[in-house]
Amino acid sequence: MIYFDNAATSWPKPESVYKEVDRVLRNCGNPGRGSHTMALEAGRVIFEARQEICRIFNIKDPMRIAFTLNTTEALNIALKGVLKEGDHVITSSMEHNSMIRPLMALQGIGIEVTIVKANSEGKIDPDDVKKAVKKNTKMIAMTHASNVTGTIMPIREIGNIAREMNLIFLVDAAQTAGVLDIDVESQNIHLLAFPGHKGLYGPQGTGGLYIKEGIDIKTIKEGGTGSKSESIYQPDLMPDKLESGTPNTPGIAGLKEGVKFIRSVGIDVIREHEKQLTKMLIEGLKEIKKVIIYGPQNVEERVGVVSIRIKDMDVGEISYLLDREFGIATRSGLHCASLAHSTIGTLQTGTLRFGIGYFNTEKEVVEAIKAIEAISHKTP
Amino acid sequence: MIYFDNAATSWPKPESVYKEVDRVLRNCGNPGRGSHTMALEAGRVIFEARQEICRIFNIKDPMRIAFTLNTTEALNIALKGVLKEGDHVITSSMEHNSMIRPLMALQGIGIEVTIVKANSEGKIDPDDVKKAVKKNTKMIAMTHASNVTGTIMPIREIGNIAREMNLIFLVDAAQTAGVLDIDVESQNIHLLAFPGHKGLYGPQGTGGLYIKEGIDIKTIKEGGTGSKSESIYQPDLMPDKLESGTPNTPGIAGLKEGVKFIRSVGIDVIREHEKQLTKMLIEGLKEIKKVIIYGPQNVEERVGVVSIRIKDMDVGEISYLLDREFGIATRSGLHCASLAHSTIGTLQTGTLRFGIGYFNTEKEVVEAIKAIEAISHKTP
Repeated sequence: MIYFDNAATSWPKPESVYKEVDRVLRNCGNPGRGSHTMALEAGRVIFEARQEICRIFNIKDPMRIAFTLNTTEALNIALKGVLKEGDHVITSSMEHNSMIRPLMALQGIGIEVTIVKANSEGKIDPDDVKKAVKKNTKMIAMTHASNVTGTIMPIREIGNIAREMNLIFLVDAAQTAGVLDIDVESQNIHLLAFPGHKGLYGPQGTGGLYIKEGIDIKTIKEGGTGSKSESIYQPDLMPDKLESGTPNTPGIAGLKEGVKFIRSVGIDVIREHEKQLTKMLIEGLKEIKKVIIYGPQNVEERVGVVSIRIKDMDVGEISYLLDREFGIATRSGLHCASLAHSTIGTLQTGTLRFGIGYFNTEKEVVEAIKAIEAISHKTP
Repeated sequence: MIYFDNAATSWPKPESVYKEVDRVLRNCGNPGRGSHTMALEAGRVIFEARQEICRIFNIKDPMRIAFTLNTTEALNIALKGVLKEGDHVITSSMEHNSMIRPLMALQGIGIEVTIVKANSEGKIDPDDVKKAVKKNTKMIAMTHASNVTGTIMPIREIGNIAREMNLIFLVDAAQTAGVLDIDVESQNIHLLAFPGHKGLYGPQGTGGLYIKEGIDIKTIKEGGTGSKSESIYQPDLMPDKLESGTPNTPGIAGLKEGVKFIRSVGIDVIREHEKQLTKMLIEGLKEIKKVIIYGPQNVEERVGVVSIRIKDMDVGEISYLLDREFGIATRSGLHCASLAHSTIGTLQTGTLRFGIGYFNTEKEVVEAIKAIEAISHKTP
């Protein structure tokens, strides 16, 4: 199988990830809730995972990271935990449903939402964000890169706007964690939602939220935390406050190994490799008649997510043919991001998406281009 | 290691669980969000897990099960999804913080909570529940068995009260799923929150909520669901509505194998084995001077959770000595259940807890009794 669905879940994982998940599953207990050897080992593994996450995002305090089921949960906690009735939040038209749907739920209870429109390549003008700021604006909430077009957002500039105007800045790093440099300090990121199972090469069922010290955040779930157990009220202690119930210890252990792998390879090396393949793919596909490529043409402006269509052909059919006839895994449809498709004009058709990862090779890209070429000849 | 912390997380898991987690992690994609072979296989695995869960709880429709990170999340969705301002809910004084803490959060926004008090063995009188019903009562929310005393609650009787009085019945099966018979139909359970990583022998990071058809439930998280992606609003479709974002596919795959294992052994056989060991343990411990045993003496009235103290000795120290000197894993403290400890009079001291599982043996129980006897001689 040639796997180009890394934007959904990266595959394969480094061997150390598989091994660590298995080791922890076979040997560890319940973290933070017992003092026996197996429980302590589970606690140690999770703490080490927090430290690894800190290292790649330049986070100072490991206790400011809450592990979650996925990025979606992290975004929900960030938005619902911080925004109150009467607050205004600015977002973009390139967001995933994991951002837009909770925002629409909040709009229903009196939070004001402004959606800044991107251009047809998915680009946001920081000036438009600045212009959208009002008296009651509390937060800018934005993806770091689009999961449809791969467009990289001007995070640094928007971080500066947030700093100047004293706003909270929430970044959705679903497509960038492990691929682009993220520095919560220099980029002025107050809340960072990240997946474990994509660019960090951990297992599905992992993700997290960084919350800068001083940000007042409410819970969306309460429960046992292994701390202040004498109280029937949720403790205010981080990360316990946001981590009720038994965590996904084997998954988090795998994530720890995924991050270690990334740090050993180097994010710059990963980015360079993915950029190279993305460039090859775009240049190859450009030569094929009937192929439409979305997003910026310049690979410096995008991550390894490439959405295309073939004129007069259903994207579901293309994806099906790629899988069955060529053994190539891609994804077709709306990629849980209706607004982004409205923005680039593909809400009716959807797109076929290649999600490039570190384990993809030039040979695989060549195969993919050939396959698309062959399929394009099947059109009427 | 002799492992008696099964009430926190069961260990070991059946070999098939380890193998399936590894297989899925190595071979599957993102379920419900792509049509390539690896994505479809992930979808198939998760659907099969739903079917397995249906079989053990007598649930008719697999689409009425939402997978969650843990039981805590399931309880939060059940309580916050159903209760509205002005509603009244009845619970017990034996609840885990996973029930009490979200209820206290709800109390803060205008939901009325009545806590029915158990006796010193942790028993609830169904009549007390009935007496607590008021005009605005909407729900009875109760654990199936205490995680502190092991006391089994009169679920059937309370289910009947719920039926008679037209109330919604939420059951927390954290200590009973896979151990006691649960039949959502005959026990009139509308909402069933269950862990994956305890009696169902799945991995940590899994759990779920059953929602009876016709129960109107709101979301606490929204996001990408792989369905109705053209809409910026959360779809009303089950289980997608309650399962935003990428699920823990390898974990759920392991859970599926855990449930298969239970069904192949038979819940009755598991219950009988655990009852036998519990009886041995209680009878052995009774003979030791200075040991105080909590909960019902009759093993028919309890699950394999046994809380004890040794007079004049710190429970943390006992647990530490058991681990270091005898290689026996137990848990000491308040077990995230302050109210239950208030009820049985151990809020100041906590208890030492044995959590018995199917893989424990008579020999291990004998060792544990001997160890407690030896430790009891160390008291002043």
